[in-house]
Amino acid sequence: MTVSEKTNRKDLVTNIDKSNEQFLIEGIRQMDPTAKVLGEEGFGDKLTSLEGRVWIVDPIDGTMNFVKQHDNFAMMIGIYQDGKGQLGFIYDVMNDVLYAGGPAVDGVWANDQQLSAPANLALSEGLIGASAPLVVHDTAHMQKIVHDSAGMRIYGSAGIEMINVLLGKTLGYISYLKPWDIAAGQILLNFLGVRVSTIDGQPLNMLSSNLVLVATEKAQRDILQIEEDDVSL
Amino acid sequence: MTVSEKTNRKDLVTNIDKSNEQFLIEGIRQMDPTAKVLGEEGFGDKLTSLEGRVWIVDPIDGTMNFVKQHDNFAMMIGIYQDGKGQLGFIYDVMNDVLYAGGPAVDGVWANDQQLSAPANLALSEGLIGASAPLVVHDTAHMQKIVHDSAGMRIYGSAGIEMINVLLGKTLGYISYLKPWDIAAGQILLNFLGVRVSTIDGQPLNMLSSNLVLVATEKAQRDILQIEEDDVSL
Repeated sequence: MTVSEKTNRKDLVTNIDKSNEQFLIEGIRQMDPTAKVLGEEGFGDKLTSLEGRVWIVDPIDGTMNFVKQHDNFAMMIGIYQDGKGQLGFIYDVMNDVLYAGGPAVDGVWANDQQLSAPANLALSEGLIGASAPLVVHDTAHMQKIVHDSAGMRIYGSAGIEMINVLLGKTLGYISYLKPWDIAAGQILLNFLGVRVSTIDGQPLNMLSSNLVLVATEKAQRDILQIEEDDVSL
Repeated sequence: MTVSEKTNRKDLVTNIDKSNEQFLIEGIRQMDPTAKVLGEEGFGDKLTSLEGRVWIVDPIDGTMNFVKQHDNFAMMIGIYQDGKGQLGFIYDVMNDVLYAGGPAVDGVWANDQQLSAPANLALSEGLIGASAPLVVHDTAHMQKIVHDSAGMRIYGSAGIEMINVLLGKTLGYISYLKPWDIAAGQILLNFLGVRVSTIDGQPLNMLSSNLVLVATEKAQRDILQIEEDDVSL
């Protein structure tokens, strides 16, 4: 394995991220030759719109964990039709569990077990996932959000964080995310009633970065209230 | 399961913590009737010294995870002789892996697989575990320590954090801990060459709380330097 830095020493890419993405995109091109593909490592198309069918690919989500832990990373694919999520896949590689589903198949499964919607917990009733820089810099009132929750967890992979939300182990997740970090999870989570929005409650722009708020309906309301209370000061 | 608050709404105890501790202490009393036992939930002895043989018991470490996640918690026992760690046990319940070992058996095992020492990484080379309040309040320069590391992870259980250090998935862990939170881990970690001290490099007082620094030898040096640099300002 060869490891390189992308934008800084905490933003890694390996030869395996790249070869995984090439392998996935080749397969997608064969299966669905007219579709567009957006990939983290740049082997897909340059997208300017979400018209038609778009596959959004993250060959290794949580590359730092992949490099340092050999655990707690995921492969992710989200399939969108004219901007609407149809089918999402998050593969927890080391536990060999594929989370798959969405409107196209009318359900969400963990391997062969169908998942039911996680409990609609209020912020105070559950744990919240976060990314470390947001907490350190207190971006978007993260410290108040953490304070009001039952506690914060940091797993270091958007895919693993979203699996935890799907399973009800955390009630949400807040992080700056690129389209490939959230494309699959948004489809799976929305299908099970979990809200995915920007931190101020707007729909995500799937062609750019977003400060993403994943939360149960009740926790989303609690967190948007925290954001709104501050604005009104 | 019945859940109660101890000191505050984030400090929980359940009937299962209590019944587990009673079960463990009954077993210990039968096996080793002259030993003293220190238990988190208070069913053991009131200790004023570590003379003789002392069993230190945490019936459920990570009770918040136990309640909210039904995952990522541990049972832990450390056995000390005249203050020296002899044998430690951390049981990762949901993964059904028992981490056991120490000087008394000359090795550390994960179930039947013997563990070798984790790599002696410098702070910049690995991930560090932490507890959320230390990061939010920037206690003991946590934000500088996190900045200098490859990243922070928060798993919400001292036992799970120490398993990650044993396996080399993180290079250390910093948290305020009671004796039962660290008793087993200290024995296993020390046996594999990982340093366990207070945040200023002193031996732990196993009869009280400590701000504990678990780290590889190199990372301990890096972190103690951060603490020292500040003092000299």
